[in-house]
Amino acid sequence: MTRWYEDIDVGSEFPLGEHTFTTGEIKRFAKSYDPQYFHLDGALAAQSQFGGLVASGWHTASMGHRKMVDTIMAEADQIRATGGVPGEAGPSPGIDKMDFLAPVRPDDTISYRLLVRAKRPSKSLPGWGVMTYFMDGTNQDGVTVYTQEFVAFNRIRRPNLTLGQRVGMFIAALPIVGPMIRTRRLR
Amino acid sequence: MTRWYEDIDVGSEFPLGEHTFTTGEIKRFAKSYDPQYFHLDGALAAQSQFGGLVASGWHTASMGHRKMVDTIMAEADQIRATGGVPGEAGPSPGIDKMDFLAPVRPDDTISYRLLVRAKRPSKSLPGWGVMTYFMDGTNQDGVTVYTQEFVAFNRIRRPNLTLGQRVGMFIAALPIVGPMIRTRRLR
Repeated sequence: MTRWYEDIDVGSEFPLGEHTFTTGEIKRFAKSYDPQYFHLDGALAAQSQFGGLVASGWHTASMGHRKMVDTIMAEADQIRATGGVPGEAGPSPGIDKMDFLAPVRPDDTISYRLLVRAKRPSKSLPGWGVMTYFMDGTNQDGVTVYTQEFVAFNRIRRPNLTLGQRVGMFIAALPIVGPMIRTRRLR
Repeated sequence: MTRWYEDIDVGSEFPLGEHTFTTGEIKRFAKSYDPQYFHLDGALAAQSQFGGLVASGWHTASMGHRKMVDTIMAEADQIRATGGVPGEAGPSPGIDKMDFLAPVRPDDTISYRLLVRAKRPSKSLPGWGVMTYFMDGTNQDGVTVYTQEFVAFNRIRRPNLTLGQRVGMFIAALPIVGPMIRTRRLR
């Protein structure tokens, strides 16, 4: 989210919009990243355990990410349009859990949703908060097709920093030195 | 892996080959699934915390999946070519942990690797084993760019099944009834 750490409430829910998966894009993604027959060939897929063509789980998850990025950018634009200053979301250091629960088939429309599970100031990145997010995708029949838990950073509007932390932030922001000193696993 | 459950040893390592990420494909993936400026625009990315264009984490992970699928299919072909019967790998029900540790930049060559961490017969899918795999990608400078832990199924060559489990397997294999009765979260 583009909101400031202080403005994101634990428990709040953000709809991310929906996406309809076409046969063409299911096959296109599969050709590049998951060329298994049940993602590529409808006739062969009919004989698989899926009983037909299904999207790669990586496709379902990547599209969820796309919907989140679109939502974040649209919100930032809207905040700027009304004269506000959007908060800043940092990249995610990783995914804690991702489950593929039901197949995504051609012409399925998946609604994605983001929930805020927890938040705390980051230990490794002063001035930023660590958010625990939950995301899911649900098809047109109300079946949840995937869930995901991940952490991401949101900037704190008014961080309460020591002098040492301020110096650390300054060094970490330097283009060459920063990446060298940054801890490997940010949390 | 296309090997039978019995033939996969805990602790063994499978090289999955390497991939060089070009500027073009980094931007192409980003356009579809992660349109953030540090994945799309080199000049703007130079001013980001990354100091230059970087691949989406979803791109890095999806390419790792591709390398694994390629390796599995090549191994199956080789086993068939020598008159053998390859084992069967089922789709993965999910990812348990994925960490993005270092950026992937244009022209970086990432070597992917799969390790077998644990295995046991599945409780929810009789006749299959649940494998715990670890995967990582390392760049040309020896820096690990991402790690991933996930579970996947491998078929057991000689499963020791009760009559009830055999009936369950038969029903689960039916095209319409099977998907209806299958447990949601297989493990």
